[in-house]
Amino acid sequence: MFTGISAFPLTPLAHDVVDEHSFIKLTQRLVSAGVDSITALGSTGSYAYLTAAERARVIRLAVEHAEGTPVFAGVGALRTSQVLAHVEAAQQAGAQGLLLAPVSYQPLTDEEVYQLFSAVAVNASVPLIVYDNPGTTRFTFTSDLYGRIAELPAVASIKIPPVPDDLDLAQQRIQEVRAAVPEHVTIGVSGDPTAVTGLVAGADAWYSVIGGTLPEPAMRMVQAVIQGNTTQALGEAQRLSPLWDLFSEYGSLRVTAALAEHLELAPRNCLPLPLQGLGTTERERVATLLSNLG
Amino acid sequence: MFTGISAFPLTPLAHDVVDEHSFIKLTQRLVSAGVDSITALGSTGSYAYLTAAERARVIRLAVEHAEGTPVFAGVGALRTSQVLAHVEAAQQAGAQGLLLAPVSYQPLTDEEVYQLFSAVAVNASVPLIVYDNPGTTRFTFTSDLYGRIAELPAVASIKIPPVPDDLDLAQQRIQEVRAAVPEHVTIGVSGDPTAVTGLVAGADAWYSVIGGTLPEPAMRMVQAVIQGNTTQALGEAQRLSPLWDLFSEYGSLRVTAALAEHLELAPRNCLPLPLQGLGTTERERVATLLSNLG
Repeated sequence: MFTGISAFPLTPLAHDVVDEHSFIKLTQRLVSAGVDSITALGSTGSYAYLTAAERARVIRLAVEHAEGTPVFAGVGALRTSQVLAHVEAAQQAGAQGLLLAPVSYQPLTDEEVYQLFSAVAVNASVPLIVYDNPGTTRFTFTSDLYGRIAELPAVASIKIPPVPDDLDLAQQRIQEVRAAVPEHVTIGVSGDPTAVTGLVAGADAWYSVIGGTLPEPAMRMVQAVIQGNTTQALGEAQRLSPLWDLFSEYGSLRVTAALAEHLELAPRNCLPLPLQGLGTTERERVATLLSNLG
Repeated sequence: MFTGISAFPLTPLAHDVVDEHSFIKLTQRLVSAGVDSITALGSTGSYAYLTAAERARVIRLAVEHAEGTPVFAGVGALRTSQVLAHVEAAQQAGAQGLLLAPVSYQPLTDEEVYQLFSAVAVNASVPLIVYDNPGTTRFTFTSDLYGRIAELPAVASIKIPPVPDDLDLAQQRIQEVRAAVPEHVTIGVSGDPTAVTGLVAGADAWYSVIGGTLPEPAMRMVQAVIQGNTTQALGEAQRLSPLWDLFSEYGSLRVTAALAEHLELAPRNCLPLPLQGLGTTERERVATLLSNLG
């Protein structure tokens, strides 16, 4: 279940309230495209900004409209007791997997992170994805810590940070992680710009930002990798380089929100404040890019 | 009101519930010591980990037991609407000042941070302290941004990160900030190890972690600076260097919690999980240190 493409939809807001209609449309789009799974409430789904009630509602909506596609749910929070409450609510809402990042305010120690995952693993009744996202959590996992956490029975997958652009280095990185974790634990890449490289290098899954809004090109790349058309897959990724440039300048979330807004999949300014959408000039770049993609 | 020593008490938990009795004892201790103000719900007060209801209750307890000492309240949160709700609740509970850090999950832009402070400034009916704490928010203010935000009418003070240990460099830093903000805005230092240096260098206030648990030595240092006994003040700070070493190794929050626990001002393991208290060896260092201080 934790292989292939897991698509991360936005959770669009309208005037600080979850826009359920937009979220349902996004979910249906992913189902139509045939993604392998939907991760509601990833970083792209703004989980960290949402209340417990909003989170539970979003997962319920995803499950209701997923037509059997597995739904995973982000459950991260600053306090262990809050994480456990999100776990319970996500399971009640029908999530088939949990995504947990070691969200921090005070920087966390390795042991604190281990104990957090351990507490969740003991309490979870569905499998757990270890979410390593140092750009937002400011926590850096060592391979050793991957190994300790991956031995917890609940852990099914690890979502690792972007692999290097260079294929040899990417392979080396995937092999390092592979050597650190039990065989049944899948390795999923994040960081869309090098995700295809990661898949070619041997990753089992792509936890995909862009897959949540533009599932077709994302699916095409994954299919090409599966069919062994490495050159085609890498070429497709290369064709999206103007998008990756925008990601690196403004962050993937702001750019993806602008994409969704331009495609009328989300209302204007759909991010939770203080996060702002892109400016006019950048939105024009997004529009040009979409038009060039066809 | 935003000068002298503002003491930051812990918000001790017992089994994941705010231990009101301990919090009241800590507050009374600060009042007895005669601190200039109490900042409930600073980073030391674990504001980021607490629910809206817990925060409101803690501020109310602080105000009820402060005997007229001004109480400031941390109101930071990831989402602007949540911050505004905390502002309203803090004011209702009797806070006389608000402390706002640009807490982040997605890294924030300067403009996003400016708009956040602007929204709070418009809605606040008590003065605002700009809380620059890059170690927890991972946002770095420029002097230019200090200047823009400090011009908002509500802003009364800026809590800056640790100044350099070297007195000349510390003076230079204070002067840079002073040049960037309006004259009526006070500059307060954080980072206890170099706080006395900061005060000698011309800061108006010390936003003090240790002042929230060990107010007497903190007050003695501030008094010495005010009386022009610079050497005595710096010597006192130097005498605490074993404490600053522990701060740098384990973070001021974990060490301060261990101090409070050793002094029976807080129950054992009073931090919100996943944050853990110190190990046995480190607790022995804390005990030795307290015994040497007398």
